[in-house]
Order: sequence, then structure tokens, then C-alpha cells
Amino acid sequence: MASKQVFIAIIGAGGVGKCFLSQLEALAKKRLSPKLVLSYICTSKKAAYSPDYSPIAINDAISVLSSSSQAPLELSKLADYLAAAPSKTVLVDNTSSQDVADKYPLFLSRGVSIVTPNKKAFSGSYKLWQDIFAAASESGAKVYHESSVGAGLPVISTLKDLVDTGDEVTKIEGVFSGTMSFLFNSFAPTSGSGGKWSAEVKKAKELGYTEPDPRDDLNGLDVARKLTILARLAGLPVESPTSFPVQSLIPKELESVSSGDEFLQRLPEFDSQMEETKSAAEKEGKVVRFVGSIDVATKQVKVGLEKFDRSHPIAALKGSDNIISFYTKRYGSNPLIIQGAGAGGDVTAMGVTSDLLKVLSQIV
Amino acid sequence: MASKQVFIAIIGAGGVGKCFLSQLEALAKKRLSPKLVLSYICTSKKAAYSPDYSPIAINDAISVLSSSSQAPLELSKLADYLAAAPSKTVLVDNTSSQDVADKYPLFLSRGVSIVTPNKKAFSGSYKLWQDIFAAASESGAKVYHESSVGAGLPVISTLKDLVDTGDEVTKIEGVFSGTMSFLFNSFAPTSGSGGKWSAEVKKAKELGYTEPDPRDDLNGLDVARKLTILARLAGLPVESPTSFPVQSLIPKELESVSSGDEFLQRLPEFDSQMEETKSAAEKEGKVVRFVGSIDVATKQVKVGLEKFDRSHPIAALKGSDNIISFYTKRYGSNPLIIQGAGAGGDVTAMGVTSDLLKVLSQIV
Repeated sequence: MASKQVFIAIIGAGGVGKCFLSQLEALAKKRLSPKLVLSYICTSKKAAYSPDYSPIAINDAISVLSSSSQAPLELSKLADYLAAAPSKTVLVDNTSSQDVADKYPLFLSRGVSIVTPNKKAFSGSYKLWQDIFAAASESGAKVYHESSVGAGLPVISTLKDLVDTGDEVTKIEGVFSGTMSFLFNSFAPTSGSGGKWSAEVKKAKELGYTEPDPRDDLNGLDVARKLTILARLAGLPVESPTSFPVQSLIPKELESVSSGDEFLQRLPEFDSQMEETKSAAEKEGKVVRFVGSIDVATKQVKVGLEKFDRSHPIAALKGSDNIISFYTKRYGSNPLIIQGAGAGGDVTAMGVTSDLLKVLSQIV
Repeated sequence: MASKQVFIAIIGAGGVGKCFLSQLEALAKKRLSPKLVLSYICTSKKAAYSPDYSPIAINDAISVLSSSSQAPLELSKLADYLAAAPSKTVLVDNTSSQDVADKYPLFLSRGVSIVTPNKKAFSGSYKLWQDIFAAASESGAKVYHESSVGAGLPVISTLKDLVDTGDEVTKIEGVFSGTMSFLFNSFAPTSGSGGKWSAEVKKAKELGYTEPDPRDDLNGLDVARKLTILARLAGLPVESPTSFPVQSLIPKELESVSSGDEFLQRLPEFDSQMEETKSAAEKEGKVVRFVGSIDVATKQVKVGLEKFDRSHPIAALKGSDNIISFYTKRYGSNPLIIQGAGAGGDVTAMGVTSDLLKVLSQIV
């Protein structure tokens, strides 16, 4: 008997996508059963695949893709292509595209499992969330998204385990953005005085820790999306990432300046506001941090600045690490804490690869 | 078509066993497919089961067991009984028995999956470890043991994910014993001076944080067993928990005193030794902690006292929490950290229950 095989389709070949490919290559070499066959790969512009699903060499996929003249399949056609495959299929969405996310219910209903770091599907409208899990439940296809919060850190799997085994999650709190972590660990360190706010933002951008336009980090939406996902997993039917209070660190006056560069240039005008916030915390012997929290009992989700004792684990965070604390009935007053790098290609891809392993163990 | 069912057999109905039963009851109510059928339960003295595998009411299992006149099946007979069942079966070993652990290869080879918090199977001889995973691999039965390290904390699953996705674990370090955590957090707190060593041991025993004879915690063997498990998962073929340096905190002179009470009575004679250790650390601005560490590159595993800066996460631990730091190639200089209660019936049972869910998702 030929050994079982599973077809893999990948959308996205950027930073995370390339790291995932290299992890997939190592995995495919090591695991003989099921045989992992790369049958489709695309970016927004190009694709590589063949009608008979013949394997694309994983170690060569990027160059095959760049020399390909095939256009990506329209998403519903891709669903047809994968649903007609002679083996089980897993779609790996390494994009952050809302368009792809919107089609998850279609893929799942056609029996295609999904693993992805894409936050959009799980933090968009509550209806999309419901449609995704209803489709998966009906068809038996699996959907895993560990890297949508905290990259490869075991955040989502841990929360699911707590909930599924009947623990009562009372509160979730943490630093969910590597960028915000880096900014506040430098701006308001637990010892020493830290730099000026605008200088820290500039430095973070130079080090590649921010989006091309730093306002895309400072508006808090990325953290709000992660909180939306965790709140829903904890049982709160949060409507959208804009349906609860999110504090933006973009001064009103700079919201509409035309470029990230102009924003950075004018940011020093507003340093005194952040300095005041920092001093107010210092007067209480505390430091300020940008955190998200979910109070399950009162159904309150919020994102913004909070003050913490210098000895608090959230204050003591280093570099651009994330920290997530789960307060539950079983764990009592000391939370279950998970901490470490929450961004970066390799650790994000790791979450996707470990999700793929979980799916493989269930569908084969 | 009747809905699928899975038969559950439980050995052990002590602290963890009772908590597990209550979690199983909630699970069985919530999950309609597969139907979870309790078909066997026993302690070392009694058992409840019937030849036709008829269900034992989960919420009533303890009283059924206490009024039963059946003796436990001899383990190889239990394997026969479960292997002959008309459904897939999972054995839940909630004991810490070496005898039960020694029979895991037999159960697994007969197709019976196993979930357990029992450390003995995975920290005994390396041959038993190999036999267990060889038997599972051959038959396709599953074996999960999350709660054998850090109770319900996601320690083993995280280490497996790191290894399976191709990360290179370079070092694992942490506080792996709730008892040792409590003792040192009180004896050498990061602020204030702490109590006398013997007084802290006495208090820990009174609070139920130690074994009936505290020497069973202070000999370091419990930590050595956990380190053995993690080292093996990280790829080191550690022969046994006594094949690497383990520092015992039992003064030589008290190793052979006849009772735990006599030990506690005479322990104050040796307070000056521990006081010296504490002062030596204080002179460097540090605190002393009882930790285990695995250096994967040099293959060094060790358990004992180490000094840490007061700001180090290991120093800042609270109560009886565990902390486990994974240093890996992908995570770089800041480790992936998991922290929280590492002992207690409910959280230990939670690890067993979440393992059961993983097994169910794969065998049905």
C-alpha cells in the first residue's frame, strides 16, 4: 500500500511564509507518513500548481514561484481545486488578508483544513467567527490559529485547554504587542529613567520593530484584534475589535498627517503628554505599560495604558517580549503566565507548523 | 447509527483521581460524541467493572467503588479486558505506581491509549521509556503525560512543539517543585529577611505543602524525575533520575533518622548551614533557589541550589509556583517562560483531562 499523503496549499510567501517553508521542508524530510505534498503556492501576484496536483519541491518553491507565469487561482476556484484533490488537504494562510479570511468558511465547508497566523478571520465580525467554526464542525475539517496571538507562544492552546477542561477563566491580562513592549520597556524602564517617547518610537522604527508607518502599531488595533480573539475563546461574544475601549497613542493632531515620516518628525511636539503619564506613574512608585485585559465576569475588554508596580511581571518584561496572564478559578490568585517573543518570522512560523502537526494527527 | 463511544478505565481514586472524575463528569455531559463510557475504576484494594463493559455512572463512581466487593484485575488481565472491548479504550493512570508504569508497554501494544500524571513511567529506566514509545508507535495507541511535569502547566506540550517543529532547545531551567518554591520564597525572599530554614520546613509541612515525611521533597528526587523527562524529550538519553548530580537538602546526619517527625525535631541543629548559603548569596546581592537545569549542548543535567539576581524571574517567583524557561535557537536570549501553580489536585487533573481530549481527537 502506498503511504498516506496530505496535500498542502500555501498562500503567502513573505517573511512568515519563507520561514514556514523552511520548517515544512525539514518536517517533510523527517516524517514519512503522511507524506507531505506541496500542491499549490501563491502570492498575491503569482502561483505555482498543476492540475494533477504534482508535487512542488518544497526547498525550491520560492524560485519555482518567482519564475512561474501562472496567476493565483481565484479563491473559490482554489477551494474547488483543493476539494477535488485525491487526498486530505490543508490550506496554510500566511497572509494577513481579510479577503482570504472571508473565504475560510468556504474552504472548511469543502473539507479543507486551515492553519494560519492571520488575525483577520478571528478578530473580524462575530458572524465570520461563527461561520468559520460552524463550517469546521459540520465538515470535520480543522482550523488552528495559534500564531494569531503571541506568535508561537502557547497562548491559544492553553486558553482552549483551560476552557475545554472546565476551568473558569476570570481574567486575562498582558502585553500583546512586541512593539509596545519594546517601546515601554525603553521609555519607562523599571530602573533608570528611559528616553524621550518620540526618540524611542524613532529607534523602534529604525530597528524594524514597528510597521512601516508606526501609527499602525500605536493605534492599538493590533492589540485589540488579539484581545478580541482571546475574549471570544473565553466565551464572550465580542462583536469586533472596535466594539470596546481602545486607547490610541497617536496624538489627535497627527492622526491625519500624510506619512509615517511626517508623523515621526512632528511626534516630539507631543513628548510632554507621555512624559506626564510616566511621571504620574513614577510618583506612585510604578511604571506605565500598554496592556490589554479581559474581565470575563463583567464582560469588559479594554486596551490602553496602565500603571504597574515595578516588581509586577508585566513591568519586569524585557526587550520586545509578550506576557499573557490567565487568572482562573483553578489557578487562584497566582495566574498561569506565558512569556517570550511574540513576534518574528521564525517563532510565528513555528506556531503555524505546530498547528499543522496537530491537524495532521487528527485528519490522517 | 449509534454515536461513537470510547471506554475509559481509571486506576487510582485519590486526590488527583477524584478531581479528574469531576472533570470527566462535566466533559461527558458536554460532549455527545464520542460518548465517554466509564468501564473500569479501581484503587489498590477495590475495583468496579462488569464483563460486558456496562457504564459506571461517573458522578457515582466513588460510592460504587467503596461499596464494591470486586478486587482489582491483575494488570495483564486488565489489558486483556480493555483490548477485548468493542470500542477504543483509554487507560487513565492516576497513581504514582511503578508497577502500573511498568505495564504501559503492554497496554499500548494492545491498542489501549494512556493518559497519566504518573512520573514513574517516563523517569524510570531509559529502557522503559523506549519500550513505551516503541509500543505506542507500533500499535497507534497514544500516550500523553502533561501532568508529569508542572501539573497542568503546558510544559511538555510546549517542549514537544519546539522539538517537533525543528527548533533547537539549548537549555531548560526552572523551579520544578511547588514545595521547594514555597520553601525558598519564604526562606530567602527578594525583600525582607525570611525565616529560619527549619521553621519554614515545619510551616510548609503544616500547610500540607510537603509529603508526609518532608525528606521525600528535600532529597531532590522529585525534581530529578521531572528533569529526566524533559531532558529525554529534548533528545538526551538520560539513563535514570540518579544518573546526574542531584543535591539533597537532607543533612547527612538526618538521612537515617526513623521518622519525619524526628527529622523535623532535629532539623534546627542544621539551620546554620542553610543560613550560610543564604548569606553567601546575599553578599552578592542575590537569593538562593532550588532549581533544575538541562544544558543540551554539554548534556549536563543537574538539580540543586543556585544563586539568582533579585530581579531574575526565578527569584521573583511567588507562593508555591513553578517556573520553566526554555532557551532555544529561535527564541534567542530571552527564553520562552511558563509559570504558575505546578501542584494541586485540580490543576494536575486538568493536565490529564486535556491530554484525554487530545487522545480523543486522534483516536475517534
